[in-house]
Amino acid sequence: MTRANVLTKPLPLHPALDLVMERIVDVPPELVWRAWTTPEHLMKWFTPAPWKTVACEIDLRPGGVFRTVMRSPEGRESPNLGCYLEVIENERLAWTNALEGGFRPATSSPVCGEDAFFTFTAVVSLAPHGEGTRYTALVMHGYVARARRHNEMGFEDGWGKALEQLVAVAKRM
Amino acid sequence: MTRANVLTKPLPLHPALDLVMERIVDVPPELVWRAWTTPEHLMKWFTPAPWKTVACEIDLRPGGVFRTVMRSPEGRESPNLGCYLEVIENERLAWTNALEGGFRPATSSPVCGEDAFFTFTAVVSLAPHGEGTRYTALVMHGYVARARRHNEMGFEDGWGKALEQLVAVAKRM
Repeated sequence: MTRANVLTKPLPLHPALDLVMERIVDVPPELVWRAWTTPEHLMKWFTPAPWKTVACEIDLRPGGVFRTVMRSPEGRESPNLGCYLEVIENERLAWTNALEGGFRPATSSPVCGEDAFFTFTAVVSLAPHGEGTRYTALVMHGYVARARRHNEMGFEDGWGKALEQLVAVAKRM
Repeated sequence: MTRANVLTKPLPLHPALDLVMERIVDVPPELVWRAWTTPEHLMKWFTPAPWKTVACEIDLRPGGVFRTVMRSPEGRESPNLGCYLEVIENERLAWTNALEGGFRPATSSPVCGEDAFFTFTAVVSLAPHGEGTRYTALVMHGYVARARRHNEMGFEDGWGKALEQLVAVAKRM
């Protein structure tokens, strides 16, 4: 497959279905990429404290598994199973929990009905910005109600805190 | 993205969740590929007669739309919306209806519960075989009940008839 086959057009945004967070961070795209794609690093920043990420599996290719297990402050564990869709080194990482590894339709995600806000596709885009990175996180939902609920749950705050943790980890790499 | 990033390992088969049809056909992979990826050709063979495919949209890249509209002998139309996952020319074409164009989680597909057998990921693989093609269609489901029901609905017969139609179309190209 040549690069020309890959999704290079801007993704079509849908204001009622998409949540977007864009920030400038002062670490270069290469370090942000490593933080996102190495289990050892990802587990240190992925979940806003006091939540923890206690397991992580990354098979970094389209169709590969992206699996994490989060642990709440009370000790409750919640597994997250997804599938990578696009892997463009230092530029773009996309995955969805509507599929599992090998592109198989998901069974473990609650994909049913308006209430199942956790079915999403996420696209993290990185672009050089001075000596840092323009960091864009796009989370796409299938239903307006899901997007709204995800927003009310604190999407921007959660992804923002995780990104701050990522930057701290990247600076120690 | 380099080819090495693409899913090159054999897909993990799961006997209870996957349906597979493998056939040798006497047209080369290049023609089978064209029949699968050109709306004008696809509309002629995609639906076993007397069903018809009356519309087709193909945006041939990972994340691109694959949309068809089928019409029953009684004139009832059923739209099918999917998203390409892998596009490796003359070799492999994968798509799912768990996602729509741009990798967005699907809304139009009945993705809920054991009964929703039509949520699937399909992988068509082509390999040269003499002057013809070894043609493998793999359809992956998330639930055993879905795979079983798809099988009982006549998966092999339906995909087999469509393939015979494809070969006839390819020979006239």
